[in-house]
Amino acid sequence: MPTTRFMDVALEEARLAGARGEVPIGAVVVKDGAIIARAGNETRALNDISAHAEILAIRRASAVLSDERLAGADLYVTLEPCTMCAAAISFARIRRLYYGASDEKGGGVEHGARFYAQPTCHHAPDVYSGIGEADAAALLKDFFSQKR
Amino acid sequence: MPTTRFMDVALEEARLAGARGEVPIGAVVVKDGAIIARAGNETRALNDISAHAEILAIRRASAVLSDERLAGADLYVTLEPCTMCAAAISFARIRRLYYGASDEKGGGVEHGARFYAQPTCHHAPDVYSGIGEADAAALLKDFFSQKR
Repeated sequence: MPTTRFMDVALEEARLAGARGEVPIGAVVVKDGAIIARAGNETRALNDISAHAEILAIRRASAVLSDERLAGADLYVTLEPCTMCAAAISFARIRRLYYGASDEKGGGVEHGARFYAQPTCHHAPDVYSGIGEADAAALLKDFFSQKR
Repeated sequence: MPTTRFMDVALEEARLAGARGEVPIGAVVVKDGAIIARAGNETRALNDISAHAEILAIRRASAVLSDERLAGADLYVTLEPCTMCAAAISFARIRRLYYGASDEKGGGVEHGARFYAQPTCHHAPDVYSGIGEADAAALLKDFFSQKR
């Protein structure tokens, strides 16, 4: 399955999150060419500020593999991870990070903390951005324009 | 209950975590002078890289209050929060952050990402460090020296 197909699944999770009234962001963890976990944001449903799509997908993948570290696994997420998630992705030893839209206000990969460039970051994934960017950005824009 | 007593409870959680084979770090969430949640690290037990003491304490406090945001609550933790937890503490709108030992290698408050000083940080707690520092540092030093 090519890169864009995995991102399509992450976008589907983002749409489902939006339909539940959550910020529409989705993530997928892939290992050996197969999806092992997928998630959308659930911060409201779970009353948990850490329940971002990336952290939920990592948690679920760790449960599937019975391993808190996901060496060799890749993560696809529709938006540039925030600083919390950027660090979580590092801790989980994710090999490659693919993300859609950039997040100037809250991103922690190419904005702000730029965690993977810090001396306190002990594992940095390879980062590929801009995949499915237009769809991911449109989902978020529609969501926030409807809320206003 | 004065500040040092709350940190003593966090240190007790750190000791309990160490006894379970987890990295000995503990955290407590306090609101209106009362402890509403406490936790030690559980990353190994839960196979969850996000199960740091701070995030578990915040999650439990949010469950108790049925609110993902903990405005007016304070967090006590035995070690300088990592970048992931520093961001989670911001997202939870914690009012004051008290921590014990500094963490040059992995801290995200006064080291590395220095999240609260970033333009992508939209709420910064008041930070007080060095409370119970010697006890917190000794617990970690003993734990890692026993592992070697």
